[in-house]
Amino acid sequence: MFMIKNLTRISPNTSSIITRFRNSGSSSLSYTLASRFCTAQETQIQSPAKIPNDVDRSQYSGLPPTREGEKPRVVVLGSGWAGCRLMKGIDTNLYDVVCVSPRNHMVFTPLLASTCVGTLEFRSVAEPISRIQPAISREPGSFFFLANCSRLDADAHEVHCETLTDGLNTLKPWKFKIAYDKLVIASGAEASTFGIHGVMENAIFLREVHHAQEIRRKLLLNLMLSDTPGISKEEKRRLLHCVVVGGGPTGVEFSGELSDFIMKDVRQRYAHVKDDIHVTLIEARDILSSFDDRLRRYAIKQLNKSGVRFVRGIVKDVQSQKLILDDGTEVPYGLLVWSTGVGPSPFVRSLGLPKDPTGRIGIDEWMRVPSVQDVFAIGDCSGYLETTGKPTLPALAQVAEREGKYLANLLNAIGKGNGGRANSAKEIELGVPFVYKHLGSMATIGRYKALVDLRESKDAKGISMTGFVSWFIWRSAYLTRVISWRNRFYVAINWFTTFVFGRDISRI
Amino acid sequence: MFMIKNLTRISPNTSSIITRFRNSGSSSLSYTLASRFCTAQETQIQSPAKIPNDVDRSQYSGLPPTREGEKPRVVVLGSGWAGCRLMKGIDTNLYDVVCVSPRNHMVFTPLLASTCVGTLEFRSVAEPISRIQPAISREPGSFFFLANCSRLDADAHEVHCETLTDGLNTLKPWKFKIAYDKLVIASGAEASTFGIHGVMENAIFLREVHHAQEIRRKLLLNLMLSDTPGISKEEKRRLLHCVVVGGGPTGVEFSGELSDFIMKDVRQRYAHVKDDIHVTLIEARDILSSFDDRLRRYAIKQLNKSGVRFVRGIVKDVQSQKLILDDGTEVPYGLLVWSTGVGPSPFVRSLGLPKDPTGRIGIDEWMRVPSVQDVFAIGDCSGYLETTGKPTLPALAQVAEREGKYLANLLNAIGKGNGGRANSAKEIELGVPFVYKHLGSMATIGRYKALVDLRESKDAKGISMTGFVSWFIWRSAYLTRVISWRNRFYVAINWFTTFVFGRDISRI
Repeated sequence: MFMIKNLTRISPNTSSIITRFRNSGSSSLSYTLASRFCTAQETQIQSPAKIPNDVDRSQYSGLPPTREGEKPRVVVLGSGWAGCRLMKGIDTNLYDVVCVSPRNHMVFTPLLASTCVGTLEFRSVAEPISRIQPAISREPGSFFFLANCSRLDADAHEVHCETLTDGLNTLKPWKFKIAYDKLVIASGAEASTFGIHGVMENAIFLREVHHAQEIRRKLLLNLMLSDTPGISKEEKRRLLHCVVVGGGPTGVEFSGELSDFIMKDVRQRYAHVKDDIHVTLIEARDILSSFDDRLRRYAIKQLNKSGVRFVRGIVKDVQSQKLILDDGTEVPYGLLVWSTGVGPSPFVRSLGLPKDPTGRIGIDEWMRVPSVQDVFAIGDCSGYLETTGKPTLPALAQVAEREGKYLANLLNAIGKGNGGRANSAKEIELGVPFVYKHLGSMATIGRYKALVDLRESKDAKGISMTGFVSWFIWRSAYLTRVISWRNRFYVAINWFTTFVFGRDISRI
Repeated sequence: MFMIKNLTRISPNTSSIITRFRNSGSSSLSYTLASRFCTAQETQIQSPAKIPNDVDRSQYSGLPPTREGEKPRVVVLGSGWAGCRLMKGIDTNLYDVVCVSPRNHMVFTPLLASTCVGTLEFRSVAEPISRIQPAISREPGSFFFLANCSRLDADAHEVHCETLTDGLNTLKPWKFKIAYDKLVIASGAEASTFGIHGVMENAIFLREVHHAQEIRRKLLLNLMLSDTPGISKEEKRRLLHCVVVGGGPTGVEFSGELSDFIMKDVRQRYAHVKDDIHVTLIEARDILSSFDDRLRRYAIKQLNKSGVRFVRGIVKDVQSQKLILDDGTEVPYGLLVWSTGVGPSPFVRSLGLPKDPTGRIGIDEWMRVPSVQDVFAIGDCSGYLETTGKPTLPALAQVAEREGKYLANLLNAIGKGNGGRANSAKEIELGVPFVYKHLGSMATIGRYKALVDLRESKDAKGISMTGFVSWFIWRSAYLTRVISWRNRFYVAINWFTTFVFGRDISRI
């Protein structure tokens, strides 16, 4: 059905393209279509195709079910910590891997806050998926598709997707289907606005590289405009007021980076306005609530020293130049960064699968979605079903990464036991269920200081420390965890040049 | 007049901002306005102010004329090669420097083509103005304003400017004036479209960092979309056809970089579509017409080997998916890069000053605009008046850089001779006029090969060479010319990582 609609959209454009080249003797242009899948032009009519084995493969727009002689296909939705760790660990001798995601890279989220002010460069925290799993671009049956998944048909073992053509006005998005042998939903969560009016329109989240780019451009623009003749005192004060809502690790780390930037680089590069720029952190409860009390007090003291001001309050409304707290206080801002946690995405909400108590896709201890065959869910989009008797794990990179690694090993074991193909893993022994062991939390707070909390839970005993040594551990720990050698190298180089030359303030 | 209009725009926003903060005991927010200039709120009525010395300084929105005891003020319009080289060389003990430009950095244009495919990173070729001339951000009388100059009032010794608030929907652009003692117009030229329909809307130029970013994003998007199920053969062929119009050094270098990218990185990272991507270079006359014939033949041979196809033709019309040549040939494209040279910008065209035969601001051998006092013009926006008997110099970085250096020395000499202030340089001996000596041309053509032409002019004798040695000279020459140590370091690191790890394909 949607293919026919799609054809009518593509045809008017393509039919008028006549490829007549002159001068073709010098270097011939031989266009060939070498890929495996069928194209829209070849697909005129389409059967409902509910049961994979009944599908007429020549009539399938997308990737048809795998056949004997082909490797079974694992489809991964998402390219975050969970999905990428899974793809890295999967045995591509056993499986073909198809990744569907709206971005072609993984973001190393713990270092994203550092890129907003130029301590690190954007590319140092972005890892292309094809570097994480090279088979994606080399194997004839493995693919990366820049697309969003719009629907899951678990009975037919297929997902419906729509391409992203952002930035191209010559091509409209189109839909296609992918049949899977195993499906891994790792599409993550989305930033929570708690239904507060104006957040979407006026605040910037801090979850993707483009968010960090937007923050950096806006911060530099505000710094320059506030130094221009003709601006009023109020406007200047407003433009240079940076407000962060949410006192979790992301909000605190961003505030710390920002105050570092102000104390070192603004003082030097924007000396005219250095006394007018301020940072306010708004949190409804306690900041860094998952950390040890001693660490929290230390963080508050250090951030206060750096000029970060804490306001305890609940945001009621966000307007384009100010936000309103629940007691009526008005807070004018020039830059508003919103990091108050995450909630289920529209795609996860749309899925007719059992959910955990917080609305995440319900899974068992083997990461399976029990109500359907061959579907797994990992990372922020999934949580333990109540029937498991376990509490859902927090939405942390650490959890997602561990789940991805576990599931890669599980799928490899299933594949080796000849259970890789659709509907063939029922008899296979799954082995040890997933157990999460918290390795500790870390957060940097600027000025070469950080918090390191190596306790397994808030009430457990263990090591927790602060200050320069923590900061050094924080840097070392992250440097070894940035995935590729290229990015490890770039992060080290970025830190070195920031230390020696200061941060880059080109607004590009 | 415009200030009153401006006030009505600012007031409705600012008057409603009430700054009531709670919890202010923890860290007080003391906002002060420390800058020198008067603000819009203080400026209610404004006199015409035609003669600087008659201006009531408290009534001046912007920077008023300098007084005794203050340093004379050099206002520089633009932040390209000419303006930045001038600012770098100016003696800030003699002058305050005010730069007005729509971008806060200089672009190292000869390396810009390399950033489009990730050989170099964007920030490696962008140099913040405050790093080129630190006084801009430190001295109380020196400023950088993110603004466009809209009008020159040479009699009143002032320029009218309008801020850029791109990306801020909460603030409208406003106007202000700057009085100058010396004015240097270095606002450059703009890309020529020769009036061809559709170029502005559909092609991408290659003059600014944001152009290179757009090219890189579009190229990666096209590569990914062309590998997605449901795309037709024609669409795939079109998306992967990269067309470059203009066979000058920029067009040729970009084609070379692109074919390098295709042969190394696309083959590895986009193996599914590697045989479908093609590059076509369209030029109406000869490519690299300023180079030696032997070098040109070598370049054509090498680029052909890399798969670049040459088409000799004149573009008649550009549509969103194809361009039409003058003989009616239709060329479908997925990416269109336009680099056919430059012409006078609207600002230069609007100036009521004498022009050179090509429409550039007419100057004498000392870079002065002879019809007015204290106004100089350098770089691509200026050219010799016919009365000088000299031909206008080509619009090259090399020329602009040399002119900037010359004028910095000239202004320093004038300043030392107490001629720095407005209308006070009439009696000063200007010394040796500017003489341009061409040091040669270089262009890279991909695959570790380049052309180096060290002859002074096309018909002169001298060294010209090709191949790997040239490429090595090209790299070395540019590395020593990238202005700051930070960027020299980054360019070297980028080249190293591209060589070792390949180019980065994250689409961020």
